[in-house]
Amino acid sequence: MAAVTRLTARNPEFASQLTKLLHVDAAEDDAIESAVAKILQAIRLEGDQALLRYTQQFDRVSAKSVAELEVPRQAWLSALEGLPAEQRQALEAAADRIRAYHERQKQDSWTFTEANGTVLGQQITPLDRVGLYVPGGKAAYPSSVLMNVIPAKVAGVKEVIMVTPTPDGQRNPLVLAAAAIGGVDRVFAVGGAQAVGALAYGTDTIAAVDKIVGPGNAYVASAKRRVFGKVGIDMIAGPSEILVICDGKTPADWIAMDLFSQAEHDELAQAILLCPDAGFLDQVQDAIDRLLPTMPRSDIIATSLKNRGALIQVDSLDEACDISNRIAPEHLEVSVQDPKSLLPKLKHAGAIFMGRHSSESLGDYCAGPNHVLPTSGTARFSSPLGVYDFQKRSSIIDVSAQGAVELGQIARVLATGEGLPAHAQSAAYRIV
Amino acid sequence: MAAVTRLTARNPEFASQLTKLLHVDAAEDDAIESAVAKILQAIRLEGDQALLRYTQQFDRVSAKSVAELEVPRQAWLSALEGLPAEQRQALEAAADRIRAYHERQKQDSWTFTEANGTVLGQQITPLDRVGLYVPGGKAAYPSSVLMNVIPAKVAGVKEVIMVTPTPDGQRNPLVLAAAAIGGVDRVFAVGGAQAVGALAYGTDTIAAVDKIVGPGNAYVASAKRRVFGKVGIDMIAGPSEILVICDGKTPADWIAMDLFSQAEHDELAQAILLCPDAGFLDQVQDAIDRLLPTMPRSDIIATSLKNRGALIQVDSLDEACDISNRIAPEHLEVSVQDPKSLLPKLKHAGAIFMGRHSSESLGDYCAGPNHVLPTSGTARFSSPLGVYDFQKRSSIIDVSAQGAVELGQIARVLATGEGLPAHAQSAAYRIV
Repeated sequence: MAAVTRLTARNPEFASQLTKLLHVDAAEDDAIESAVAKILQAIRLEGDQALLRYTQQFDRVSAKSVAELEVPRQAWLSALEGLPAEQRQALEAAADRIRAYHERQKQDSWTFTEANGTVLGQQITPLDRVGLYVPGGKAAYPSSVLMNVIPAKVAGVKEVIMVTPTPDGQRNPLVLAAAAIGGVDRVFAVGGAQAVGALAYGTDTIAAVDKIVGPGNAYVASAKRRVFGKVGIDMIAGPSEILVICDGKTPADWIAMDLFSQAEHDELAQAILLCPDAGFLDQVQDAIDRLLPTMPRSDIIATSLKNRGALIQVDSLDEACDISNRIAPEHLEVSVQDPKSLLPKLKHAGAIFMGRHSSESLGDYCAGPNHVLPTSGTARFSSPLGVYDFQKRSSIIDVSAQGAVELGQIARVLATGEGLPAHAQSAAYRIV
Repeated sequence: MAAVTRLTARNPEFASQLTKLLHVDAAEDDAIESAVAKILQAIRLEGDQALLRYTQQFDRVSAKSVAELEVPRQAWLSALEGLPAEQRQALEAAADRIRAYHERQKQDSWTFTEANGTVLGQQITPLDRVGLYVPGGKAAYPSSVLMNVIPAKVAGVKEVIMVTPTPDGQRNPLVLAAAAIGGVDRVFAVGGAQAVGALAYGTDTIAAVDKIVGPGNAYVASAKRRVFGKVGIDMIAGPSEILVICDGKTPADWIAMDLFSQAEHDELAQAILLCPDAGFLDQVQDAIDRLLPTMPRSDIIATSLKNRGALIQVDSLDEACDISNRIAPEHLEVSVQDPKSLLPKLKHAGAIFMGRHSSESLGDYCAGPNHVLPTSGTARFSSPLGVYDFQKRSSIIDVSAQGAVELGQIARVLATGEGLPAHAQSAAYRIV
């Protein structure tokens, strides 16, 4: 039987129980921090040479030059052509849907003209060059390649450089195929903090990028945090999470499997169910016990559910919404009869899956919206990865001669109040 | 005479000269880092008590409780009523213009429905609660209060908590008046890393916020960097910068004063002029020499211009645009006859001031666009502070029964390819 914590929101201890359940130990690892600092410093000073050295050391891949580590486009195309037709079609269908959805996020420059002829607005432009980190080994997901590169290309980014480690020279054909489908421009078989450093600072062979996105291990996360400011980064992702709000009318097996689909990611993943019906919670527990032995990744699922999962009885769906807002989950399934009635109450979540048919797994792959989502409660203040992450804005301020008279008088008074006389004089000159 | 570096873009050494000119030493100060780590830890563990202790220690303000450190609304209103009419009117006019401009940035939720009834989109909601840091002392700018609080309130943030240190109990009436005009909800007379910690972690008296914005000294910047992830933060600002592109036809005194208006901020501020006309660069140098002695902040201006300023001769306005894109300046003045013709070439800048009448100082105070802008070249990947910084998005995925059949088949194939069988099964259940 799979142990899953059972809680009742009515319990006076519930608030502190929930806090404990949600806690993630985010302590920095000093050994990782100092290793990464050293690697980044070496890349900054030695460029390609340091990158070759670390690739030899960590991935056991020897190359005479970083150019040798570039994976040529022909290799991606071969990978794509080598896929079983079903897989290729699925990847292409997913890419089409992701692209169509993200096209709707594209933002255009705007201006407006005031009565005196002054024009104000924002010019919106794409980033020039973006780096995409793709992990090696078992966590190399082609879907992540699509979810990162497509919004960048929709935004108009000219060059997306993908880096991915190939330990012992082993390339992942699904990842290369996804690079071809998604529109990546160049691929280098390098990884770790050294790849992040190369993207941030540039080397003779790898051009410096403006932003680095994509998931990675603790070394990659530390490196991204350290180069932030020199380049932009996406969020540093914590363990993945799902919160399911259910009215007790969805098949219990479906809900159990939805919890599994989160828990199977890794032992730290979190799956929580909120339901007002105690009997349904029992049914889901039964389904978990029955289905778990059939799952190939049952050990990971069992550990995740035992340490971080919970079945929580609430008094009402309204209370479930309040708890959900407190958690601000990455994925929120609203598996109820009338999800639209709850939507206005749901303030903080990365993605909201509405209704019994909207399983999180559909969103992970092909519904269209991005699967790179804010974790660990950061949905309180941040958003899914999107086209807007690859566009930036410049304010446009085009003041007419008459506008300069009106604005100059205000600016002069305020600049003088702030003790900035050159500001005041600069404005005053334009009052003519 | 004021020394300003004179460069020529045609010089083979120019690229490296420019790199040197732009370099900002961003090394972390270990003493500051460890002091801030200790302060944040104390706030997290002891809350109000630690906040009172540090406020006593750093600001020499004793209070029995943090409630005593709250500045009551009546005090802001008194500050507002005590302002000279001209200052009050200027602040109110600026606030009105800033609000009108930012109203145009507000983004609305959107959805679309596919042929099979599946609904996709994004729900856009405001952050719940925001903290606004306002420095004490001479860098306390009422205009910054307006520029930070107004976009938050336009976004729909319910509660904006302002913190500002009052060393020796000295309150800044202009800042309090701006809080009243801008719509701040609560004000606490606390500052430094301890105030950032209180906003991020919450104490018994100060509620934890979702995002912290506003400028501050090195301690405040370090604290913001450290609490990032627990809460959102705006960018960590570097020294302020202006780049002026001029065709040589704007009055030289105007350009000199525009450079001064940046340089007077502090010794590290950077003011650079690009112009194809060597004679005009001479005129601007003459104007600098003539006007500098008349400036109250001439020492700061002279130091800034000497160490970080430059007058650069370019071959053409097109080359000036290329150099500007390389610099990605915070403020860019395009002081030429036909600025619109250059706009499409200008890819990276925080704010673009078009034409001879658009002095940066007008944008600092009252044109409408935000004066919180990306510095140190970060305009390559980031944007002015805006309403979008106080809104976040939740993906909406409402898959119809028929949609689940179509999407489920794609997701099942891809999940199987990624070795995630619970994902595959969760999708497969919905194919009914």
